[in-house]
Parts: sequence; C-alpha cells; structure tokens
Amino acid sequence: MQVARLLAIGTELALGQSVDTNSAWLAKRLAERGLRSQGHECVADDLDAIVDAFVRAASKADVVVATGGLGPTDDDLTRAAIARAAGVRLVEREEALRDVLAFFEARRRAMPERNRVQALMPEGARVLLNSCGTAPGIHIRIGRAEVFSLPGVPLEMRTMYETGVAPALPPVGGAVLRSRSVHTCGRPEAEVNDLLGELMKRGRNPEVGTSAALGEITVKINVEAASAAEADRLIAETAQVVGERLGDAVYGYDGESLAFSLGSLLKQRRETLAVAESCTGGLLGELLTDVAGSSAYFLGGVISYHNDAKRELLGVDGVLLEKHGAVSAPVAIAMAEGAARRLRADHALSITGIAGPGGGTAEKPVGLVYIGVAGKTGVEAREFFLGADQPRDFIRQRAARGAINWLRTRLLRGR
Amino acid sequence: MQVARLLAIGTELALGQSVDTNSAWLAKRLAERGLRSQGHECVADDLDAIVDAFVRAASKADVVVATGGLGPTDDDLTRAAIARAAGVRLVEREEALRDVLAFFEARRRAMPERNRVQALMPEGARVLLNSCGTAPGIHIRIGRAEVFSLPGVPLEMRTMYETGVAPALPPVGGAVLRSRSVHTCGRPEAEVNDLLGELMKRGRNPEVGTSAALGEITVKINVEAASAAEADRLIAETAQVVGERLGDAVYGYDGESLAFSLGSLLKQRRETLAVAESCTGGLLGELLTDVAGSSAYFLGGVISYHNDAKRELLGVDGVLLEKHGAVSAPVAIAMAEGAARRLRADHALSITGIAGPGGGTAEKPVGLVYIGVAGKTGVEAREFFLGADQPRDFIRQRAARGAINWLRTRLLRGR
Repeated sequence: MQVARLLAIGTELALGQSVDTNSAWLAKRLAERGLRSQGHECVADDLDAIVDAFVRAASKADVVVATGGLGPTDDDLTRAAIARAAGVRLVEREEALRDVLAFFEARRRAMPERNRVQALMPEGARVLLNSCGTAPGIHIRIGRAEVFSLPGVPLEMRTMYETGVAPALPPVGGAVLRSRSVHTCGRPEAEVNDLLGELMKRGRNPEVGTSAALGEITVKINVEAASAAEADRLIAETAQVVGERLGDAVYGYDGESLAFSLGSLLKQRRETLAVAESCTGGLLGELLTDVAGSSAYFLGGVISYHNDAKRELLGVDGVLLEKHGAVSAPVAIAMAEGAARRLRADHALSITGIAGPGGGTAEKPVGLVYIGVAGKTGVEAREFFLGADQPRDFIRQRAARGAINWLRTRLLRGR
Repeated sequence: MQVARLLAIGTELALGQSVDTNSAWLAKRLAERGLRSQGHECVADDLDAIVDAFVRAASKADVVVATGGLGPTDDDLTRAAIARAAGVRLVEREEALRDVLAFFEARRRAMPERNRVQALMPEGARVLLNSCGTAPGIHIRIGRAEVFSLPGVPLEMRTMYETGVAPALPPVGGAVLRSRSVHTCGRPEAEVNDLLGELMKRGRNPEVGTSAALGEITVKINVEAASAAEADRLIAETAQVVGERLGDAVYGYDGESLAFSLGSLLKQRRETLAVAESCTGGLLGELLTDVAGSSAYFLGGVISYHNDAKRELLGVDGVLLEKHGAVSAPVAIAMAEGAARRLRADHALSITGIAGPGGGTAEKPVGLVYIGVAGKTGVEAREFFLGADQPRDFIRQRAARGAINWLRTRLLRGR
C-alpha cells in the first residue's frame, strides 16, 4: 500500500491554540484512495523547521499533503519552505495571480498589493486554483513524493483537495483501505455495543468500532482488501448486519446528517415542516436548512426567545404560560401548534428548555427541555433531562438533534 | 526558553479516524509553565516509527510528553518503544502492578491476565500512578530530555498531567510564554497586516501573527519574558498598539465571540434585538443565543424561509416581494422593520440571500446576500457578494457574522 504523510503548519497549532483537524480529514480521504497515512506532524511558523519537515516527509512517503502558511502575511512561510526543500526559486505565476485577482473581483474589491505574494510559486510547480479564498495551492514533486500544499482554512482546504489534489493522486496498486460510517441516533453507546456483539471483536476484517458525539453513535467499519471491489463487498456485508441489528436507529451513512435524513422523508411524502424554538434560539432551523434544497419542505419558523414572541408570533395563550411556565409540556405543544398553524405546515417541531448556565431552579433544572410536535403525526410533547452540569452548547445541540430524530422516527413508525 | 515536543501515538489518529486534541491541550499547559512547544507529531502503532519519534523528539527538546499506546492490547507499543529509545530493558514493577490491580478491585472485578503487561516499565523509570484507568504512566530521562508517557484517554491524561507531570517538570529558568488573541472583523487580512506593519516582523518579541476564519481575522500576540509580570506588561503594550491601529474592527479578546461583543453593547445600552432570517435559516439567532445571558437583550425572531412566512409573520408587502424579489434590499429592509415592529425591539437585523448551491441566476448569483437593519440606528440595507463558488455553510456563516458586525459598528459609531 502506498504511504502518505501530512504536515500542518502554524505556530497557533504548535502552541495548542488551535487544534489541527485538517490532517485527520485528509488522512481519511487519502485512505479511501488507497494511501495510508503513517502519521502527521505539526510545525510552528519557523522556516528551517518547515523545510526540515518537508524534506523528511518527502523522503518517507509517496504523497505529502501540507496545510497552512499560504496566506499573504509575513508569518506565511510555506511557499518559501517548499522552494527550499525542492531546491528551486520562487517565481510569480500568472495563473496564480489571476486566481488571487479573481477572488477580489468577485467581491468587487481591489486586490491589496500585499496579496501579490500569494502568486509566488516554487519553479516548476503546478498551481492549484482556490475558488473559495485568496491562497492558491502548490503541487510539486520532491524526490519520489508528490507534494501538495493547501490553505489551512478547513473549508478552502477541503474544496481544493477535491478539485486539485484528488484528481492528481498516483494510481492505486494492490491493497486498499475502505471505510464506511453508519450513523445512529436514539440508542446509547453501550446498547449499540451489545447489539453489535461479536462484530466488535479486534482483529476482525472488516473491523468495527463505535464513537459517540452529541448523543449520536457512529459505527465505523474499516476494511483492508486486495481490491476495491472486494473491499466494497466486505463492507456492504458488514453494514447490512449492522443495519439489521440497529433498526431505525440508523439514520444515514458517511457524513449524512440527521436533518438530511428527515428532509429526505419529508420530500418523499411531499410534506412541509415549520419550527418554534426557544432555548435553541435558531439552531434547529439552522440544522434543517444546512441541507441544500431544504426549501422544498422547510417553510420557516419562529425564534420565540421572549414570552412576548411566544404570544405574538405563535399565539401561545398567556394563561398557559402563566400556569405552567414557558418550559413545560403544554407550552411546547402550544408552540408547535402555533408554528404549524401560522405557517400552514404539515408538521411542526418546538423546543423550550433551560440551556443554562443560569436560569435553573430545583423544580426546573438546567438541562430540562421539552420538545413538542404537532401536525400529521399527532400532537405530543416529550421531556428530556440533558444534564445540569453540561455546557450550554451541548444541551442546545442535543435538544435540536433530539427533536429532528423524534419526528424522523414518528414518520418511519407512522406516528 | 525551554522547549517541549509532543507525541500522539495511535493508528486511529494517524488514519484520521480520531482527532488528536491531547497535544494541543498539553502544549497550552506546558506554555504556562515556560515550556514552548515547537511542534507535535502523530505516529501510528508501529514499533520502529514510535522508537524513531521518541529518539528524535528527545534530541531536540527539554521535555517530551507522549500520549497513547499504554493499554493492555497487542497494538499498545509505547512501553516497548520507550525502553528501546532509552536503551534499557522492560521490567515488571510492583507499584505499577498494584496500580492496575487497584483499578479492578475498586470495581469488584478480577484483573484479566492481559492487563499484567501494563505493569511493565522501562528499567529506571518512575511510575506515574493512574487514578482513573488501568494504564500507569512512565517518566524517564532520555539524553537531556525528561520524557513522560501518559494514556491517550483525555480524562486520564489530564488528571495524570496534573498529578504526575506538572510537579516533575524542570524548574522554569525564568522565561515564561504568554499569549493573547485580539479578534477583528470587517477588515481583510492583508489590510490588517499592512496596518500592523513592523509589529508582524518575525523575531520580534512579542511576536505578532494573524489567522483568518469566516471573515474574521485574529491577531495573536505571543511573548517570551523573564517573568509573568514582564510578559503581561509586554503583551498589554503590544495589544494597545494593535487596538489603536485596527480601531473598531477589534471586537474582542481570547475567544470572545462577535455575538458576545454585540450583546455587551446592547446590555450597556439596555436595548433589545430581534432578527428575521431567510437564507441563514436560524443561524443568526443561534449565534446570538450561544451567549449565556442573551435573554437580557435578545427577544427572538422569525425564520422566514418561505415567502408566506415573510408575509404572514413579518408583514412584508406581497407587492414588494413581487416587484424586487425576496433577495433584494427593499425586502431586507421590510423584514428588519417587520421583526422590530412585531417583537417591539429597539434593533432588528435581517438576512436574505442565496446560499446555494442551487437558486442562483445571472442577475442574482449564489453568494448574493442583503443584510437589513431597522431601529434606533436607522433603516438601511447592504449588499454583499460572498462568492458564487463558496460552500453553502460558508456563505451562511459569513452573512450571519457580517450582520452582527454591522450592527456592532453602527452602535459604536452612532449609526
């Protein structure tokens, strides 16, 4: 199997002020292409250290991908380091300059003179165009290694990997490594573990593992096989067994979101959705509309943070608010009913709760959340305790994802 | 200043299936103790590679901290690698065995025989007891470096750093490293760089660098000084110059968010805010309410994804929608006015735009966004081109942050 090494460049990474997530993302993508990452290194903005890291990585790997240090400022040293590691000069490249200029033109702004350094490239390099930012990337051969340099901003890096790196990777020979993620929601990790049973044994091929984040459990299937076809067959077999054991807790594969899964169901049924959010403040709407094409079924909603908003915009009865409090099952139901009615939606979801850190009481502690549903699957509210000692963001994320998953399973189960 | 290097050991890290957060955490803690991390490395479970990484790190640093590879299974190779790097044998240590046994006793379970390997230590090492898990840690000298090995589980690692590593770190020879982040929005990175001028020169102390994400530029100030008081003084001096040069583009320090900054201004003024969101689908509200205590000024809003929602919930005139289209300055203004009126807010922000990937036309391309403001700073709309080829998430994030920053600067400038 061919070998890849990754470099992440930046003093903020070396000092631990930011966490490098680019290398992990790249390692996964390269593995899918049959390039096994044997490790990565994080280097501060120090020219000698960066040159040394490139020389060392290029001597050990077939492919090196570096991120960071391509900006226009004085602490962006990757261009110069690659030139030195490759033993060539830096030269201004017209297509790189055009790429930088195009970024500013698209924003109807003039290019500051300082950005011109971003058009410098090691002689003989291929320019990787950047459609999202100002920093063109670099592709050059150093020794036997294909070396790619991408910006450190994750969104730019990911787009440029797809357009500039993936198509230029060396053809794969021999063993391949393939992975599949099966995403689940609604069952705790230990239960998922028990249901998977012998599939979780180490040394099995495919190897099966689980990881948990924000109440969702992802089952990871890794396989090594002699060919892509063989790998795909082995993965499909194991994925099917996983699916049978976990049932409708499975909502998607390989990065598909819960919101995407709910959206697909709504699209099939040609039904619409509205929301009413209190403690999540817009997060539920944001997750739902993060799905491209969500306007086909998502109508909108109300962020009813203040009680006036619940009354005015959703028609929640003031007596109800008075009697039960804003964080209560009856108010969650009234919010969902109000959103469905005002937006003429087939389904509405509501969330009201105490995200903390303040605002909790003995009776209604931080982490208490009511989720309401109204519409074609009926009218109901559910109480969740998401942990009084949990961070605000965690409680909000769990609440919003719990709401999406609840409607998803109601649609699947016919209520 | 003394130098530290970090190693993270594990195939799941090398393959990118987990992100190494331990190294960043350790780098920050070591910096507080005057040990500057010059980089870290992530190594797969391969004995030769791990030995090589220890030898190289120990030759370059005063302190090496490694995480991972101390478990009881066959792919846990750190113990053996350290012994080889130090040129000593592995021996069973009684206090280490007692530590492993104690873990199982506390859980009323017998120790599986497999866990006995965890009591093996390189000869001459100090045993670091583990109060949270089964893996004792290792402290040994290799060459001139103090080498520490901790488990990879973050909770165990952090506890053992405090109890086993921090007290054994070499006394700081005066020098300490302190950092400050100055967050800005509204000026492009190159312009920030030009304004900072000679502050950005490499080798300066404090050292000043910039990083960009989602349209916000962070200026990072790192200082090395003989004492904490001296470091704080130097940082405050540089931070003041940075503040003077960048003016009201500076919105906060050390992780404070744009939304926090706007919220503080609103709280001071005892004024309230409402939102009306189309393409951001709730993200603006989510960012605003991510701030604990935001209910003091944030009233709520409307997610007017469908045009019916703009009409029904915000009272936007159907003729206006017909004539100018939903993505237009007049509609942005009408949305903001509607939100301010319906929620009786002192200020309202609105966003309408085309987040893509579909829905763009020649006249109104993907990335075209109008932000509206209504209330005490007047009524106005602004047009933004956020890039037709940008990912949906990027356009939404930029739009929401742009809106928050616009109201922030209007409040500061008195309009």
